[in-house]
Amino acid sequence: MGVGKTKRMPRAVREQQMLDAAVRTFGQRGYMAASMDEIAELAGVSKPLVYLYLNSKEDLFTACIRREARALTEAVRAGVRPGLPADGQLWSGLRAFFTHTARNPDGWAVLHLQARTHGERFAAEVAAMREEIVAFVTQLIAAAAREAHRDPDLPEREVAGLAEALVGAAESLADWANATPGVTAKQAAATLMNFAWAGLGDLMAGSPWPAPEESEEEPVAQAG
Amino acid sequence: MGVGKTKRMPRAVREQQMLDAAVRTFGQRGYMAASMDEIAELAGVSKPLVYLYLNSKEDLFTACIRREARALTEAVRAGVRPGLPADGQLWSGLRAFFTHTARNPDGWAVLHLQARTHGERFAAEVAAMREEIVAFVTQLIAAAAREAHRDPDLPEREVAGLAEALVGAAESLADWANATPGVTAKQAAATLMNFAWAGLGDLMAGSPWPAPEESEEEPVAQAG
Repeated sequence: MGVGKTKRMPRAVREQQMLDAAVRTFGQRGYMAASMDEIAELAGVSKPLVYLYLNSKEDLFTACIRREARALTEAVRAGVRPGLPADGQLWSGLRAFFTHTARNPDGWAVLHLQARTHGERFAAEVAAMREEIVAFVTQLIAAAAREAHRDPDLPEREVAGLAEALVGAAESLADWANATPGVTAKQAAATLMNFAWAGLGDLMAGSPWPAPEESEEEPVAQAG
Repeated sequence: MGVGKTKRMPRAVREQQMLDAAVRTFGQRGYMAASMDEIAELAGVSKPLVYLYLNSKEDLFTACIRREARALTEAVRAGVRPGLPADGQLWSGLRAFFTHTARNPDGWAVLHLQARTHGERFAAEVAAMREEIVAFVTQLIAAAAREAHRDPDLPEREVAGLAEALVGAAESLADWANATPGVTAKQAAATLMNFAWAGLGDLMAGSPWPAPEESEEEPVAQAG
């Protein structure tokens, strides 16, 4: 079953195909309901080959979490434009985040829903990624505070709290954007930017954060 | 074992004691590691009595989720002062939320961590509570927008997104406050209020949300 096929392709490539199929299946069906038969079929390989390469359903799921976590953190880091002022950096990072979660809804479901609802081992994997993102956002906010020459008024603990708030808001909005037909990555990023940068007070007073003009090199992904 | 004791106390009271012990054990040990022996011992009853009253570990956990979810939503609803302007209502609601999560760290761990990491049945219980809170916050923001006479500029979808962002930020900060020694409920609420109302832009410019003077009737709980 498929042994002939597998010889034509390097193991690394075949493995990525299995992970693609697994992320899609875990993300859409949920970890419990997903079957190894289904994953093997979707990957176009035999079930024994999936076990040979990835060992067990648990290990396959762990490999999915790690790959999707790395892809997400790399997308955000790559998206942030270091030369911009603080709000521009935040905007570019949020655009990258929501574009990634909109384009990879199954990967996001694996990370934010499935990985946290099926035991502490998987939850710890995704907690490590979250800590990395919170640390990154903390740096961004601290740099913004230094830039504004206001460090003495914004103590380290307050910066850490703001980063937690921002990351929690982004996670919640990514779930919402992916579950709400017609919400684009750009809209989700703009909502969060309004909230995080301008605040509800400014919004109510009619002063949202002034989003820059759309640049052509950043196509907006459709959610869903 | 304990049968004599149980007769002295109405079933409802005994059941609440079991739930107290279960919330503490599930919150601190995690759902998987928590044993029914431990819960029975902590409640001061026999294990058969726990099974007689609550049926199974799964049902006991579900009862814990429901009780803690009800307590949290009631605390937030009771905390919001309807007569105040929008920012005052939000501040009073956030104070109530973080005071409740700080005073009931095990209940919060059950709701936000344990209930979401041990299967879809439990995750669905807590998702229902979350939807209720998001709907409540959506109403608050929509009312604030009406108050500011800006409804045409703040469409329904934007309000829904802002509510998701605010709830996600609050969840994230409650985890952080309970895990960070010395962060009080009031500090967590103030951080989120600064973030949500004034926004990072105003914070950087040195204009945080002006918190009202501390009133004596609202003691601040210590986190942790």
